[in-house]
Formats: sequence, structure tokens, C-alpha cells
Amino acid sequence: MDFRADGAAALEWAARYLERVDELPVLAQVKPGELSARLPESAPEQPETFADVLRDLDELIVPALTNWQSPRFFSYFATTSSEPAILAELLAAAMNQVAIVWRASPASTELELRVADWVRQLLGLPDGWHGHIEDTASTSTLAALITARHVTGRNVVVCSEHAHSSVEKDARMLGMELRKQPVDAELRMIVPERVDDVACVVATVGTTSFASVDPVRELAAAAHAAGAWLHVDAAYAGSSWICEEERWSQDGVELADSLVVNPHKWLLVPSDCSLVWTSRPDEWREAFTLTPEYLRSDDEAFSLADFGPPLGRRFRSLKLWATLRVYGAEGLRAILREHIRLAGLFAGWVEDSDEWELVAPRRFSLVVFRWNGTDEENEQILARVNASGEIFITQTKLDGRYVLRLAIGNARTTEEHVRRAWDVLNREAKR
Amino acid sequence: MDFRADGAAALEWAARYLERVDELPVLAQVKPGELSARLPESAPEQPETFADVLRDLDELIVPALTNWQSPRFFSYFATTSSEPAILAELLAAAMNQVAIVWRASPASTELELRVADWVRQLLGLPDGWHGHIEDTASTSTLAALITARHVTGRNVVVCSEHAHSSVEKDARMLGMELRKQPVDAELRMIVPERVDDVACVVATVGTTSFASVDPVRELAAAAHAAGAWLHVDAAYAGSSWICEEERWSQDGVELADSLVVNPHKWLLVPSDCSLVWTSRPDEWREAFTLTPEYLRSDDEAFSLADFGPPLGRRFRSLKLWATLRVYGAEGLRAILREHIRLAGLFAGWVEDSDEWELVAPRRFSLVVFRWNGTDEENEQILARVNASGEIFITQTKLDGRYVLRLAIGNARTTEEHVRRAWDVLNREAKR
Repeated sequence: MDFRADGAAALEWAARYLERVDELPVLAQVKPGELSARLPESAPEQPETFADVLRDLDELIVPALTNWQSPRFFSYFATTSSEPAILAELLAAAMNQVAIVWRASPASTELELRVADWVRQLLGLPDGWHGHIEDTASTSTLAALITARHVTGRNVVVCSEHAHSSVEKDARMLGMELRKQPVDAELRMIVPERVDDVACVVATVGTTSFASVDPVRELAAAAHAAGAWLHVDAAYAGSSWICEEERWSQDGVELADSLVVNPHKWLLVPSDCSLVWTSRPDEWREAFTLTPEYLRSDDEAFSLADFGPPLGRRFRSLKLWATLRVYGAEGLRAILREHIRLAGLFAGWVEDSDEWELVAPRRFSLVVFRWNGTDEENEQILARVNASGEIFITQTKLDGRYVLRLAIGNARTTEEHVRRAWDVLNREAKR
Repeated sequence: MDFRADGAAALEWAARYLERVDELPVLAQVKPGELSARLPESAPEQPETFADVLRDLDELIVPALTNWQSPRFFSYFATTSSEPAILAELLAAAMNQVAIVWRASPASTELELRVADWVRQLLGLPDGWHGHIEDTASTSTLAALITARHVTGRNVVVCSEHAHSSVEKDARMLGMELRKQPVDAELRMIVPERVDDVACVVATVGTTSFASVDPVRELAAAAHAAGAWLHVDAAYAGSSWICEEERWSQDGVELADSLVVNPHKWLLVPSDCSLVWTSRPDEWREAFTLTPEYLRSDDEAFSLADFGPPLGRRFRSLKLWATLRVYGAEGLRAILREHIRLAGLFAGWVEDSDEWELVAPRRFSLVVFRWNGTDEENEQILARVNASGEIFITQTKLDGRYVLRLAIGNARTTEEHVRRAWDVLNREAKR
């Protein structure tokens, strides 16, 4: 292949995809197995051209995409893969750094440490915390639980009943016992009375269903009084701390033993990029390293594989570095503030309507609401709006009732897109 | 930024990097902390240009790269990030699929399953095995150990003393007991006499130090007779099975309960891409899913997060798909055969020399050898050849003796590069 010519075609494909993503259905309009049935059963024996790949990208792959890059994507937590980050992934793949130890990639190792520290400062977190990048919050929290068990010698994890499913999955994979705490009227975890047999208390800032905020300060006090580790999962909402006015939700986080925030959620970088910091880096490292202290060299002192589960580590910091520089802190703040403003606007429309109701206060850029009708009606509204391809939203349950979620987080989303979501919802509700 | 213009500059940067990588030192010629000292302490408040990023890539990052893409990289296991794969990473970042469940990305989910099956066929593995992609072999083996503990209810892992460090790290993270078995004269794990309290026996095909091959058939028989799980780590050597003549090392692998092979090692895709198959997909899934059987829908039947630790999953199959198509199976076989031929050639030079000796038979594309002198002399030779920047090799120990490893695996490596490695080694040995 001709790297320059095929590369220009790939770049043009990406540029056109980003231009036309607003015209594509948001939720893939295919059935399970439909793409599989169209893909060849076996790899080709003889070489094909890169143009063949691009053709199949259009003909086979695009119809089976759920378009996370669409400005009308309001599901889960909406995300953005920014243009500098996309190009950085090209560059990272060209260099193919594998940072298994410092010397295998000084560049990847040291840039990752530095960029983690840049974000620490932007979020207003304490000096001296050690940050690095894992693939997902599932892995970052897994690492926290491993460290907590290593440090405490205990085997119990406590989290809110609204904590992310990854906490339950991580505990189960590790063979740890999970205790789910109930929540108060504001969907905040009730501080457990007794945690002296607990390895790790997991507090959530910005739960997946409602973006509710656990009382981190009280949980930290309870955990530390009993010798437990406090891990804070702010995978989504933590990015909002780049805006000072959102730091109300950071109260007590400075007491955490570890914290996860995912730039691939709300800081404009594509998956995968999960930042995890610890205020106790020596103990954290001890849980993962196979190099005893007396064998550490200058080289090894920097090796990030000593701070998490996998040995191989790709050059993930490059996309975060490029994004932070091309947007600047001010540029990122402006985007997040607009998302929060749009969520407030949508929440206002819901509140002003007799036919819809807010079921929880709007927090960050998430609105949770429902049609004034039965669960079945709400379920049908959701099915119809998603089947239309015009917008994509998800659902959750509150006290057994079926409720709808609209999450704003794509940098291309404008007030017009949010208004369209409102129109589509009303149209389908009244059908 | 202008995505097309900045993209063209990024593409040109990548093209030029690949053209000049053979002129750059292989091992980064910097000291720990040297890059950090040159990076700004904080993120910029105001936007910078993408051209600024590319400038700093040249000025700051390139000097701190260990160039894995160099044809003179012979360390660890040498790898290649192929041109179609590099472009596929650009495309994957543009689409930013996050395949947390099937509907969140039918394309990523179904292409991953299909491409895993393409590779299964190319390697001559049994029909019906379920394959998917994790980031690294560390995670693939972690998943195998989790499943083994789930299935057997036992807590002991057995592997060879030459197994990869990730087995020890994984067992430790999970709180499992690790037993390391000694090896025979050919560096093959001795079949343990008693494994009836064992959850998982890990057999290695192609150990990191010597590429030795454990007796998989005998280990499978012992494991299965005792109700233990058999996991095969063929992260490096498994790719060689695309060539029929290399399948001598596959004997017994058809009996495995799970198998890991890393396309990011020797199938020309950049990190991260680790393929893991299981012959017992229902039990494997049960170890990870939070969805009970009676709640499974058609959607969820395909969700790959149910088959491994992380929930978030990026579109890793795209680069493997592009690479398999653009090279074709025949193209990949030709490259691997050439690597194996070059390793044989180098091993022959060592054997024919009075000043060097082979310390283990050449297996696959790895040669382990030493200078006829003291450990200190060999250590100094290694330090000097790596400091020259001309080649990069690593060391290991055999029976307490310091020995050198030359691993061939970059698609740009030619006979001339291997001859240069031999010349550099002889020059530095005689200095």
C-alpha cells in the first residue's frame, strides 16, 4: 500500500464521517447478527487493497455503528473524540510505544505522568498525588480494590446501591465481598455505621443513573477511622471540576486515598483513557510491582506498569496532551459549561410542562425525567425515539419506576440539537 | 483547528517518522527525568495550535522514544505497527465506538467476534472456540484465572518458573497462590505430580526468556484429570501457527480451556490487541456477566464486556481486520517465515564462531546466546551495544549466567539489519 495516498483517503473518510455524522441515525438500525451475516467467514489468503477496507467501512460497518460522535447522542454518558485526539491516535499508532518499563518508552512514561499532573491541577486536586492512565474506570477501580486489600488485609467492599456496576464486577472478579448501602432521599449513600472489617469504601461523585453525589467527607472520615481505603469514582462528573463553580461536588475528595476521572467521558478524548490518582503512591505501587524495593533502579522508579494491572501500556497520554493544548483549559471549560447550561435548559422545559416531570434534580449535564403516564408508556416512548434514529437516550429505574435519562456530553451538541430531542420526545409521546 | 490541514500534517509526520526511524537511535538516549524537565509544569489556559503539538513531538518527544518501529529493534519481542493498522487507529478514533453492550456498537462487537474467528482459523485452532480481544496478555490471563477460580472453586495457580511475570502478577492481584514448577533440560515445565487442589495450570508456548515450549498435551491431561482449568499463554509464539510448519509447537493446544495470542506482538498490529479464546464460553461468560441467564436478551448475548474485566471496549478489531486484509494470510506468512529464517541465520553465525555460543536452541524468531567470557563482560557488551543506539537487545539469565537475547519481529528488518547487529556485537565485544 501507499501510506501517503491511502492515508489521505483514510483522513478524508474521517473528515467526511465527522461532517455527516449528524445525518446518520444515532442508534444503529440493525438486528443482532446482521453485520456478521455480511462479513466473510474467513480472512483472505491474498492481499486486498486499503481502498477495499474503506469501501467496506461504508457498506458494512457504518450501518452497524451506533454513532457516539453524533450531536444527538444523549445516552449513557455522551462523549466526544476531538479532532486533535483523533490525530494523536494516528501518531501514537505510528510510533507504537510499549511502555512496559521506563526505558522501553521514556516518552510515553514521562508524558503520562506529566499530563496526569496537568489534569490534577486543572481539577484543583491536592499537590503530590500520583496519577497515571488505565484503559477504563473498571480497571482503575479494580486497581484501587487490589491496593485496598493489599494495604488492609481485609476483603469487604462497600458502595452505594447506585454505584457503577463495575464496582460489583471488580469485587466479584477479586473474590471480595460487596456490601451495597442504601441511599437517602437525594440518592446519596448513607454512611455505614460500621466499617472496621472493610477494605475499601467506594464513594461516587456523579452516579450513572442520576449523577447523585455521595457524602465524600463523611465517608472518608468513617473509612479512615476504621483503617479502610477510600476510593472515589468520579469517572463522569470529575471532569466538571475544571470549572470552579462545579467544585461543590468535590467536597471531601481531597481526603481520598484514590480517585478515578475518565477524560474519555467528558474531556474530549476517545476511549480509552481513564485517569487514576492516589495520595498513597508507595502503598499503591507495592500492590502491583514484582520488583522488591532493594532492586529498584532509577529506570524502574518511573515504570508505570508497577502502578496497575497490565504490563503493556500504549501511548494514551498523547491524545490527552494534544487535546489539552489545542483547546486550552479555557476552551474545555467553555464546552462543559455549555453542556451544563443545555441540560439546565432541557430540565426547565420538563419542569414547565404538565406532561413530563423531573424525577431527580438536574446535576451536571444529566437530566432524569419521565412522561406523566405508566411505565409501559415511558418504555414505549423510549423505544420509539430510539428507533427513529433521531436521538438516542437510555433509561433507568427510580424506586421501581421506569424513568428516562438525557445526558449531554458531545462537543458538537448545540441548543438546536437539544430542542430537537425535546420535540422528538413530545412527538413520540403523543403518537 | 482545520482537521483536513492539520490531519495532512499529522499524516506527513507519521510517514516521515516511518521513513527515518531507521536513522534514529533504537534505545532512547535520555536519562530518567530528562523529558519531564523540558515539559511545561501546567496545561495551557489558552488554545495552542496543532502545529505546536507537532513541533514538540519533534523537539521533545522523539528524543525520548525507544523506537519499537526500528528494524534494528531486537529487544523483548520485537513488533510492528503496520501501515493499514496505523490508519485503522485513526478511523477507530474518529468513530469512537464504546462497545459496552451490543447495541452501543453492533459494528465493533460483531467485527471483533468475526476477526477473532478469522485468526482462529488461520492458526488451525478447533471450531467453536469463542474469541475476543483484550488489551494485553496480562488481562487475558487475568480473565482466565478469574474464570478458573469461578469454575473450580479453588485458589491455586501452577506455571513454569519460566512463565511470564504477568502470571505471577495476576495471581497476586487476585489473591491466588502461585506455584512455580521447575523445568527440564529443554526449559520445559515439568508436569506437576499433584494438581487436585489447583484452579488453573498455565502452560507457555514460547517463554519470554527462551521461547521454550511447555508439554501442553501432558499438562492438559494432568489438569483435566484433576478438574483444573488449562490456560495456554502463546502470546508471542502462537502467531507462528499461521505457518503450518510451525504447528509442532501447537501439540495439545486443542485441549486447552483458554488460549492467549497477541496480534500486537507478531501479527503487525500496534498495541493494544490481545486475542483470547475459550473452548468453554458459557462458563467463561458466567464468571464476568452481571446479567443472570433469565434476563439475557438477544442484544446481551453478544455483549463482549460479559467476557472480560473492563466494561468499556474500544474498536480494536478494526486494525486487525485492516491488517489481515491488506497483507492477506500469505503476506503475513511470508513475513513471519523471513523472521524465522533470519533468526536461524544469526544463530548459525553464533554457532560457527569460536567467540560466541548459543545457550539454547533457536526457537521461532528468538536467539539466546553469549560471549565466551564472564557475566560482567556480557553485561558490558549489552550496555555498549545499546548505548550505541545502533541496535537494542535485552538480556536474561540461564542457570544464573547472564545471557543475551536477539528477537526478530519487525516487518522492516532485513538480512542487512541482522548482519549489522552481528557486526555491532562483535565490534563492542572486542573493544
